[in-house]
Amino acid sequence: MDIITTKAAMQEKAKGLVKTGASIGFVPTMGFLHDGHLRLVKESVANNDITIMSIFVNPLQFGPGEDFEAYPRDVERDKKLAMEAGVDILFLPQRDDMYPRDLSIDVKAVSRTDVLCGKSRPGHFDGVATVLIKLFNITMPDNVYFGQKDAQQVAVVEALIQDLDIPVELVPVPTVREQDGLARSSRNVYLNEEERAQAPHLYKSLQLAETAMMNGEYNTTKLVEIIKNHINENTNGIIDYVEILKYPELQSINQIEGKIIIAIAVKFSRARLIDNMIINLEEMGGS
Amino acid sequence: MDIITTKAAMQEKAKGLVKTGASIGFVPTMGFLHDGHLRLVKESVANNDITIMSIFVNPLQFGPGEDFEAYPRDVERDKKLAMEAGVDILFLPQRDDMYPRDLSIDVKAVSRTDVLCGKSRPGHFDGVATVLIKLFNITMPDNVYFGQKDAQQVAVVEALIQDLDIPVELVPVPTVREQDGLARSSRNVYLNEEERAQAPHLYKSLQLAETAMMNGEYNTTKLVEIIKNHINENTNGIIDYVEILKYPELQSINQIEGKIIIAIAVKFSRARLIDNMIINLEEMGGS
Repeated sequence: MDIITTKAAMQEKAKGLVKTGASIGFVPTMGFLHDGHLRLVKESVANNDITIMSIFVNPLQFGPGEDFEAYPRDVERDKKLAMEAGVDILFLPQRDDMYPRDLSIDVKAVSRTDVLCGKSRPGHFDGVATVLIKLFNITMPDNVYFGQKDAQQVAVVEALIQDLDIPVELVPVPTVREQDGLARSSRNVYLNEEERAQAPHLYKSLQLAETAMMNGEYNTTKLVEIIKNHINENTNGIIDYVEILKYPELQSINQIEGKIIIAIAVKFSRARLIDNMIINLEEMGGS
Repeated sequence: MDIITTKAAMQEKAKGLVKTGASIGFVPTMGFLHDGHLRLVKESVANNDITIMSIFVNPLQFGPGEDFEAYPRDVERDKKLAMEAGVDILFLPQRDDMYPRDLSIDVKAVSRTDVLCGKSRPGHFDGVATVLIKLFNITMPDNVYFGQKDAQQVAVVEALIQDLDIPVELVPVPTVREQDGLARSSRNVYLNEEERAQAPHLYKSLQLAETAMMNGEYNTTKLVEIIKNHINENTNGIIDYVEILKYPELQSINQIEGKIIIAIAVKFSRARLIDNMIINLEEMGGS
């Protein structure tokens, strides 16, 4: 595994690879790798000649109240995991290299951002969009891999790629789950024993709504109620949001139709968990 | 010469070219080609395996008072000129293909834009930046060619490329001039006979300032005065601006130092002419 630490060297390398006709898969991360990231690498390795992973804790996507400095980092462990997973090139740029001066270009993500987690994180997706435009230009990938667990990020990045005609294919990768259904997350370690036992009910509540849908319940208010009731009855968590939206447009709907997302966020004592399910009603044999 | 009319086909073609290792030169235009454009093509043809020219009248860079509809167009003539000049691929996208929906990403050029022509064209460079990001992603060039006559555009695009790490080299091409020094422009035909005879004094005024600088005059106020006096004494034009700025930062300076631009805009009865000179004092053996 090559480790590249400057963007100039990374871009030079990518240009050379592209000219040889090699296909490039790209997994952008902020490091502190877990199974979710490694699943993305696995997808990339299986479908590209070269897999590039970046680790960059992007200051631009942290809000004023969010602690950029405290974001967990463990580069030595990450290097080992990345190498074992089959990453060919690990790109570890420095902050001053990525942002050497005030940007002359201001990039704002103006749609799909004012719902779900974006509602409470103004500016977050502007920072995500900015760093991704830069990383795509530096690593020149054919395919880029994102976890479907951050479904809003997938929707925003999909629009970014389409609207700026970025020559890359976005590949959303299904959420990795524990045997009991809990979505893998580095935050799960912050759950106490009781909460850990309750947490699988988040996914169960989504499954309940899915079943209701298959049985003909298309009213979003009622479906949201089913989910909220199940979470409230089976966990001590406090519901942050339960939303059912058109996907990937993330627009409000009253009646289920076409492709939709059910997304939830629940706060436990020391961890806020998110989960979601994307359902295509046409594929379900629905309306 | 290939003519490609959809962005999907153009991007597909560019991807294929890149994978063969061919170098791509790109000349973005709004059509109605003149010698200035053809000079850019000549540079590109001499230095790349493949030259792509785009013709697209970009609605995003026209302000509310500026007439997008009235912008001159003559595609048949342009095709002929592009082919004769050696363009390999002429890219002629339609508006609905370039902007099929409201953009989910808002791009703003926030520096180098509030001086010179940008001062009176708010939003103009946002539109330029947006369409160039898209065109670079669609044509995937190694080199892109811009006329130095639009020096502010060169400065803004240089910053865009640097700050978003776009993998392209900007090549500024010197202004093409008539024998008497007048900068070539499609607007010159709007000058009446008397104005046409006076117009070379714009360039003469720049040369006068250059000579003054070489003789040790580094005070920008005095240099601006020399230029204004010369234009007022030798033409009927009305001065829009005469500015001397640090280049490419386009910041105000009181004393000449390093690399600078002298830029002027003068209104004649039916045409507003611009011209500029970029001077590197270190190369002149100055301060």
